[in-house]
Amino acid sequence: MRLADLGERSGVPLATVKYYLREGLLPPGRRINATQAEYDESHLRRLRLVRAMIQVGRIPVATVREVLAHVDDDSLGLTVRLGAALWALPHPAGEAPGAPAEAAGPSREVAGPSQEAASPSREAADDPHRAAADLLVDELLARLGWSAARELGALSPAHRALVTTLATLHRLGYPLDADDLLPYARTMEQAAAHDLDRMEQLPTPREQTEYAVASAALFEPVLLNLRRLAQCEESNRRYGL
Amino acid sequence: MRLADLGERSGVPLATVKYYLREGLLPPGRRINATQAEYDESHLRRLRLVRAMIQVGRIPVATVREVLAHVDDDSLGLTVRLGAALWALPHPAGEAPGAPAEAAGPSREVAGPSQEAASPSREAADDPHRAAADLLVDELLARLGWSAARELGALSPAHRALVTTLATLHRLGYPLDADDLLPYARTMEQAAAHDLDRMEQLPTPREQTEYAVASAALFEPVLLNLRRLAQCEESNRRYGL
Repeated sequence: MRLADLGERSGVPLATVKYYLREGLLPPGRRINATQAEYDESHLRRLRLVRAMIQVGRIPVATVREVLAHVDDDSLGLTVRLGAALWALPHPAGEAPGAPAEAAGPSREVAGPSQEAASPSREAADDPHRAAADLLVDELLARLGWSAARELGALSPAHRALVTTLATLHRLGYPLDADDLLPYARTMEQAAAHDLDRMEQLPTPREQTEYAVASAALFEPVLLNLRRLAQCEESNRRYGL
Repeated sequence: MRLADLGERSGVPLATVKYYLREGLLPPGRRINATQAEYDESHLRRLRLVRAMIQVGRIPVATVREVLAHVDDDSLGLTVRLGAALWALPHPAGEAPGAPAEAAGPSREVAGPSQEAASPSREAADDPHRAAADLLVDELLARLGWSAARELGALSPAHRALVTTLATLHRLGYPLDADDLLPYARTMEQAAAHDLDRMEQLPTPREQTEYAVASAALFEPVLLNLRRLAQCEESNRRYGL
């Protein structure tokens, strides 16, 4: 198909498709003459993935490029390929080093955040909140029997981000314990298995890795809004409309 | 306690505490002389909540102020008070009207996003993707028996954001069905009940509403990172490290 058809079939505006091509997020088509190129189903699939990562996942262009480099690396075995692509995704850490939400507020004359970000003690090994969060994550993973996650530990960005988030909550007076986290973790475990079952039905490692990235990055707003709806439902159930 | 003690006990830098006071996010202390005021445990609790909303929840200052106005409104019954505070929180919609992720990318010469945002067809009633998402959410809520959520429908920001997200995923070629969503929704339902059980142990409606806001806004990064860890664990389990 031609470039215009690619835009048409994907629902992505042509100017955006051209931008993705220039940025290398979409591989070039097969030249058929001096001014035209031919695109196929793999371009359409890639275009949809890029669009969804940027529009739904709010992932920065540079990060999308890095993730796709791993997705496209045919020299990697499936495990490393999946791992590299997923680890390159952003991990919400629940801690704003530069406190962007405050900086974006109406008053910009905030001395606090920068001062605080400069303080080395928050990341130090003797931070009692971080130590508590480390212990909590370790207990949780042990009870779950997630041995790979325990072994990888802080090498894994999700592990690091989880510890950082729990340390921040602990510091702010909202401590969680393993019993709070276990039911959520069990659900996520079931969902991950279901996800990989679906992934394995795809024919090539590249398509499988694309699927894994899409599923990891795109389902998050769905999940968060289901949680908000459930809270609203349960509150109405107990206290009336 | 004095202002300095408030900073000390909360772990929030003094300049940030003063900023919150100026912005009205923290109520003034009780004046004890021309230059000093006295703060109590309710200030400490409020300071921790504000800090957590901004730092962990990445919620803009103006939104925090709006949420707190509902939390502090003693004229409201618990149901409306909870509802108003929770509905004022940001709801990730999985659709970027101005495509901020792209605008923040290395190249800013993007004609696509603004052109696209101007297109009225994406929100139109005859958008087949939105129609599919509407049907899907309705089927899901019916199967869950969430009657309040069905009745409120698009009045609820979580409902609207969920439909928008699913419509975007559908448009981009990642359709989900009710069977995909049900297990997640069931878990969120259990968690919401557990949350309200804990909330009801608090002594006053104000503290209860504070707790509900904290729980809604702060647990999200925890949840998302548990999901990433589970994906990594399951992938290692199947394909080796």
